Amino acid sequence: MVKQFGPITGTRIAEKLSLSRAALRSDLAILTMSGLLGARPRVGYYHTGKKPTELIAGIIGNIRVADVQSRPIVIRETCSVYDAIVAIFTEDVGTIVVVSDGGFIEGIISRKDLLKAAMGGKNINELPVTLAMTRMPNIILAAADEPILRAAKKLISHQVDSLPVVEMATVDQIEKFKVVGRITKTNITQLFVNLADS
Amino acid sequence: MVKQFGPITGTRIAEKLSLSRAALRSDLAILTMSGLLGARPRVGYYHTGKKPTELIAGIIGNIRVADVQSRPIVIRETCSVYDAIVAIFTEDVGTIVVVSDGGFIEGIISRKDLLKAAMGGKNINELPVTLAMTRMPNIILAAADEPILRAAKKLISHQVDSLPVVEMATVDQIEKFKVVGRITKTNITQLFVNLADS
Repeated sequence: MVKQFGPITGTRIAEKLSLSRAALRSDLAILTMSGLLGARPRVGYYHTGKKPTELIAGIIGNIRVADVQSRPIVIRETCSVYDAIVAIFTEDVGTIVVVSDGGFIEGIISRKDLLKAAMGGKNINELPVTLAMTRMPNIILAAADEPILRAAKKLISHQVDSLPVVEMATVDQIEKFKVVGRITKTNITQLFVNLADS
Repeated sequence: MVKQFGPITGTRIAEKLSLSRAALRSDLAILTMSGLLGARPRVGYYHTGKKPTELIAGIIGNIRVADVQSRPIVIRETCSVYDAIVAIFTEDVGTIVVVSDGGFIEGIISRKDLLKAAMGGKNINELPVTLAMTRMPNIILAAADEPILRAAKKLISHQVDSLPVVEMATVDQIEKFKVVGRITKTNITQLFVNLADS
């Protein structure tokens, strides 16, 4: 109807369908949020030309990293590999971020890195975590206002389980990344369940 | 329109919208697949009473474990912890299934289990994998024809990264589970990306 008669007001749509304005509200909200319909104040709804297949894409497109991220799990760069193993068990996470003073990211260390280090035959109590971690700039990052779809694609294409969520800061004229959260495949799986159950 | 005038044929909908039947085909297919509309041969389309919010749920509800599962990664129960560590690095997976003769599941072993075993101070070359693994029946399983949403919920509620996909078989009057695949949070993340990009 909006495609044929748009722009058309919500009141006019309700009249044509012999429905109350209130009965239409949630449907119009979904159609607008998904991008199938556009809405202009005092003009009405218009058809954007998108297909119903784009509905899911439209809804997911509105979700940002900040909406689903978990709290960051970090250890200091002065820690040993042993400390990192204790932290990964205590927090029950797959990856830990290694930070310098002020919470700026220096590296990340995963269960896989720790397993490799533990197998290395060295004394893990004396082995600095910095020798076993993946260092900046070889770390895939996410921003809090980034679309969650883009973060999910990074997890897949870079074959990692977790992305540190960071904010950029300039310290002594050097760009640094402050760790503010993490996005994991668990967050994406939970989001998938929430969307399917909504 | 279908809500108001249904059951209504596709031809009649096309007439009312001044569109060709062909132009409507994909939209009607999506609406039917998602469960918003029902369709009866020679009667036409009718409104099922579901809301647009249920569109995503409808589409996801049609996806089964078999549609997205990965191949199983297994080792024999006669292997050592060292063998399991080599396999987990070679295959680059988070969890390996431990099987008996015939490919029946006996246990699973994760990076976390292996890290714990490597820290234990024993000779991992001589330590049987069966002493470090999680044993049946304490393993969360999935079936190939199970809805993917149910498998995703198991991953979340049981806090595991991977579910072995199994088929039941009776061997010498004992029920056993043959390993035919695996479902991981990576599969769900990939599915999420595919749905959003479709």
